[in-house]
Amino acid sequence: MDNSKYFLNNIKYPSDLRKLKEDDLIQVSKELREFIIDVVSSNPGHFGASLGVVELTVALHYIYNTPYDKIVWDVGHQAYGHKILTGRREAFHTNRKYKGISGFPSPSESKYDSFGVGHSSTSISGALGMALASQYKNEKNRNIVAVIGDGSMTAGLAFEGLNNAGIQNSNILVILNDNHMAIDPNVGALNDYLLDITTSRTYNKVKDEIWNVLGKVKKFGPNTQSFIQKIENGIKSIILRQSNLFEALNFRYFGPVDGHDVTHLTQVLKDLKDIPGPKLLHCLTKKGKGFKQAELDQTAWHAPGLFNKDTGEKIIIKSNKPTPPKFQDVFGHTIVELAEKNKKIVGITPAMPTGSSLNIMMEKMPDRAFDVGIAEQHAVTFSAGLATQGLIPFCNIYSSFMQRAYDQVIHDVALQKLNVVFCLDRGGLVGSDGATHHGAYDLAFMRTVPNMIVAAPMDEEELRNLMYTAQLKDMGPFSIRYPRGKGIMPDWELPMKKIEIGKARILLEGNDIAILTIGAIGAQLTKLYERFELEDIKIAHYDMRFVKPLDENLLHKIFNNHNKIITVEDGTLVGGFASAVIEFMVDNNYSAKVARLGIPDKFIEHGTQDELYKECGYDSESIYNKAKEMLTQTDKKKIIENIKNIRHIRN
Amino acid sequence: MDNSKYFLNNIKYPSDLRKLKEDDLIQVSKELREFIIDVVSSNPGHFGASLGVVELTVALHYIYNTPYDKIVWDVGHQAYGHKILTGRREAFHTNRKYKGISGFPSPSESKYDSFGVGHSSTSISGALGMALASQYKNEKNRNIVAVIGDGSMTAGLAFEGLNNAGIQNSNILVILNDNHMAIDPNVGALNDYLLDITTSRTYNKVKDEIWNVLGKVKKFGPNTQSFIQKIENGIKSIILRQSNLFEALNFRYFGPVDGHDVTHLTQVLKDLKDIPGPKLLHCLTKKGKGFKQAELDQTAWHAPGLFNKDTGEKIIIKSNKPTPPKFQDVFGHTIVELAEKNKKIVGITPAMPTGSSLNIMMEKMPDRAFDVGIAEQHAVTFSAGLATQGLIPFCNIYSSFMQRAYDQVIHDVALQKLNVVFCLDRGGLVGSDGATHHGAYDLAFMRTVPNMIVAAPMDEEELRNLMYTAQLKDMGPFSIRYPRGKGIMPDWELPMKKIEIGKARILLEGNDIAILTIGAIGAQLTKLYERFELEDIKIAHYDMRFVKPLDENLLHKIFNNHNKIITVEDGTLVGGFASAVIEFMVDNNYSAKVARLGIPDKFIEHGTQDELYKECGYDSESIYNKAKEMLTQTDKKKIIENIKNIRHIRN
Repeated sequence: MDNSKYFLNNIKYPSDLRKLKEDDLIQVSKELREFIIDVVSSNPGHFGASLGVVELTVALHYIYNTPYDKIVWDVGHQAYGHKILTGRREAFHTNRKYKGISGFPSPSESKYDSFGVGHSSTSISGALGMALASQYKNEKNRNIVAVIGDGSMTAGLAFEGLNNAGIQNSNILVILNDNHMAIDPNVGALNDYLLDITTSRTYNKVKDEIWNVLGKVKKFGPNTQSFIQKIENGIKSIILRQSNLFEALNFRYFGPVDGHDVTHLTQVLKDLKDIPGPKLLHCLTKKGKGFKQAELDQTAWHAPGLFNKDTGEKIIIKSNKPTPPKFQDVFGHTIVELAEKNKKIVGITPAMPTGSSLNIMMEKMPDRAFDVGIAEQHAVTFSAGLATQGLIPFCNIYSSFMQRAYDQVIHDVALQKLNVVFCLDRGGLVGSDGATHHGAYDLAFMRTVPNMIVAAPMDEEELRNLMYTAQLKDMGPFSIRYPRGKGIMPDWELPMKKIEIGKARILLEGNDIAILTIGAIGAQLTKLYERFELEDIKIAHYDMRFVKPLDENLLHKIFNNHNKIITVEDGTLVGGFASAVIEFMVDNNYSAKVARLGIPDKFIEHGTQDELYKECGYDSESIYNKAKEMLTQTDKKKIIENIKNIRHIRN
Repeated sequence: MDNSKYFLNNIKYPSDLRKLKEDDLIQVSKELREFIIDVVSSNPGHFGASLGVVELTVALHYIYNTPYDKIVWDVGHQAYGHKILTGRREAFHTNRKYKGISGFPSPSESKYDSFGVGHSSTSISGALGMALASQYKNEKNRNIVAVIGDGSMTAGLAFEGLNNAGIQNSNILVILNDNHMAIDPNVGALNDYLLDITTSRTYNKVKDEIWNVLGKVKKFGPNTQSFIQKIENGIKSIILRQSNLFEALNFRYFGPVDGHDVTHLTQVLKDLKDIPGPKLLHCLTKKGKGFKQAELDQTAWHAPGLFNKDTGEKIIIKSNKPTPPKFQDVFGHTIVELAEKNKKIVGITPAMPTGSSLNIMMEKMPDRAFDVGIAEQHAVTFSAGLATQGLIPFCNIYSSFMQRAYDQVIHDVALQKLNVVFCLDRGGLVGSDGATHHGAYDLAFMRTVPNMIVAAPMDEEELRNLMYTAQLKDMGPFSIRYPRGKGIMPDWELPMKKIEIGKARILLEGNDIAILTIGAIGAQLTKLYERFELEDIKIAHYDMRFVKPLDENLLHKIFNNHNKIITVEDGTLVGGFASAVIEFMVDNNYSAKVARLGIPDKFIEHGTQDELYKECGYDSESIYNKAKEMLTQTDKKKIIENIKNIRHIRN
């Protein structure tokens, strides 16, 4: 038996944990942390966040009667420890892999995952719903806990949840997991505020001392009494109840407590169980706790990839071939290049400077690049405000997070025809982050927006040219979406040129079948050129570049010359690119056989991008098969016609 | 000359106002208020909000150098006074009318309207963008002011804006227009908090008194000094800076001030101009100020319709015919009827109890109906939380406001397949509220969401049946959209029955042309039955009821039997209902001539619903014309064919 894992090997479910003595929890925490380091070093995933809440995780499952009691993890990339303690220790090496367990809590995976998460700041609202349902059902002994990071707390949804919870007479405990980080360091006034509470003498201490002073003052004689009474009333009614931001919102505030002292945490949680009403426990933790390199560079170790767990060295698989850059880096370098020439350009990211590579601009032009924190709605409306004054904001938001700002795109940008450039990063299937993070819907929802240009580059050069085009005069609302990860052009730093709005690119002409692709997924087709040529199949390949406006001239030609068409998109088939094409077809009285390849109308789980393209039927092989199928059907028809002709002749 | 309007008649632009003496502003305010009452009594519009900010409006334009200085009105239904003082006094009687001025600030209408608004809570983010743009451009003398109500302050976007503004070194003044109201009374912990500040002794007074006491205490001798110093540091660093929620977010807080004292307001605004950094002025106002009935029943007088300005009586045009109910009231009564039988049903509205008629349930079942304040994102995620515990929330949100919660619908409800029923009120063109409020996109964006049932009733009975169906066991995410205003059935309280999911209704069979309608707009077609019959045109009318899932059996029949099809929807043609139909057509290898009637790909301004249906080409007349056109084209073809045949015979 491995003594160092003595406890963990015997904890299948939290009920096993709850059989242990409180004194053992320190050792359990140690083992859990080692287990996470061990597995994540060889199975890449989120890292720092889960290390930061090891003790909190252990204490929560020790004190609360999960799964009857509900723990709602905000975002959920900190929930690895939770997964390991709730029946998934043995499956944990499949984390984020195709058909393996999800990297985020998912109710369909485990009844211990009380709420499906992935996007930030949903936990308070979700937990409040659970709490009021329990109240309505008169389940007095059910506890509901939301665990939310200080980064997530900056998003409006979290505030909306707090504001509403504060007036509901509900038993909800919000644990503020305060590490002063989102993925990058947290920003915003709230962050400064939390830092103030924790670095100056604590709130509670000050509160006590004020009372002490007032006690003393009373002893100085009756001539101070009237003052004191007035002040006491004032303080009671305002200062004490409202001197804390959370208490202003009617939460009872406790803390801050050391989030790595599992013994103390356990005690505090036990005490809080008996206190009714909305409560907030301010818990200080360190992202990456217990792994030196991760503590020192928390952003880099948010999701580090493979690493050597003993030395902390990252394992990078090098290739001898020149490798193409990430689309993100092309964005990051190109915006700087453009901004150097065009003084109107500014950059905006909601808490994703490293992920989007806007950090390159933030370093070089700190006064022109803004990290606004996790606040997609604000990012867009703030960009609109900047644009009203003649600036050209490049607002970079991940496709799936842009869902949060759909109204702001319509109402604050498009309706006012403002020159905001939306760079929609991680459009299409993103891989191992799975269902919550796939950028499946943006082409469909962005094209519903009047005045919006909806573009998607097929490669690095097109991304640069689209970015160049978008910052030219009076372009109005302009969206450019590109996928997570690498492109196809090792030599990508070509001079930029304007792309005519709504103009597609003809990559290959051919009469047998026309294939229309949008965005980087077009590379799946170029791989097939040779194969089709060898089989003497003449395909036409059109890189459409724009979903809106469509290249109508080209489409007229296509529908006049082709009756077999395939569309390929890395996005939903419900209302997306293909739908735009067939709307054109119908409105212009064409008819053709159109095969639409893209994401079907269901949620797609995690896996590598290639695995998922295949599952959804638009990887190279699937495109090839679809083309063959369409051509073969024609062949069959030809054969049938031939047979008919032969019969005709015989008759 | 009308002496009572002596000043107002001479104010065309704020520059005229600024020529007056400060003493005259009381009279200007009086005249402005009377003018608003006068015009709105005979040209219905928003009422209470604008009366509440008359003095603030006058003071702002007096002190600030508009339009160079920027005033951003949040929501904007309080901006009538602003419009009247900025060049639109004479056009004001066209307010909200077709081709008249907009009921909301709109930059395309006037350079004094610095930001286009209509939805709540955008003003701080927009203003911050303007302020940082000015800073970047080194325009030191430009002032930026956001005027936001306490109702709007509850939405997450406002918090995101405050949180970000607090760390930017920007000169932005936020005026909190605090009347404790949204359209209905404001709710949430923030509201309680604001009430606390204003009803107990004021914050500033307490602050002063604490200092006074501490001053006194010092005199009591050296033995108290160490205490006092400790406390002073503590208070300085925490209490004083953070005892106010806004100061916790780094805003300097001023107020509260009486928002109806124009002289004092003018003085305060003048003083604040010289104070750098983010500032918040807490201004107390009364909605409906100066019109007794409006002050007494603020919700009813938010937008009262026609009224007698002298007596305050509302003018209701009565009809002798039995009138059909508003869809809103059908919803309101039906949810109570259902909830009486099904204990799992609860109701949720984000600040629209009266508008949505959920107030009927709130009165009858106060523990089962929740007004969560202006917080659409929270409304949805909160509903998700309730649904995880087996309840069935009916979450009622206006279509255009649901754009705010698109991500929550996908991520918190649909991905978890939760039984949340979305009642999308005001789907389609809403009339005089105009571009910001039209529910143009919901059919398109809701159908992109996997697992979502997307339905739209054609009449009151179908609304009831859909609501009944949605609360049956395990229905999953279910959306029901219906328009603003009256239906067509005076006798609507029929017994409810289940509608099979995805099953359309065949209203009329005919071979000449198939017309597919979705939702209440179908009534435009039933009006034509007789006319078509008289002309011996055989139309088929299918009330599709579901955009998703489509009635595929029926569609197979339609496409097998018809080659001329018209689709009609009160929603965008980009990715909406028609697109769903033609996706089906293409995927199933049908071809037909399809004419798609609906909202074109542009923003539609205000007018009556009938005027706008006509403008967009899907009122009765337009449907009739389109059908005739399609049939005539066939006739032409027939004629040409006949001619060919004749030639053939001749030859």
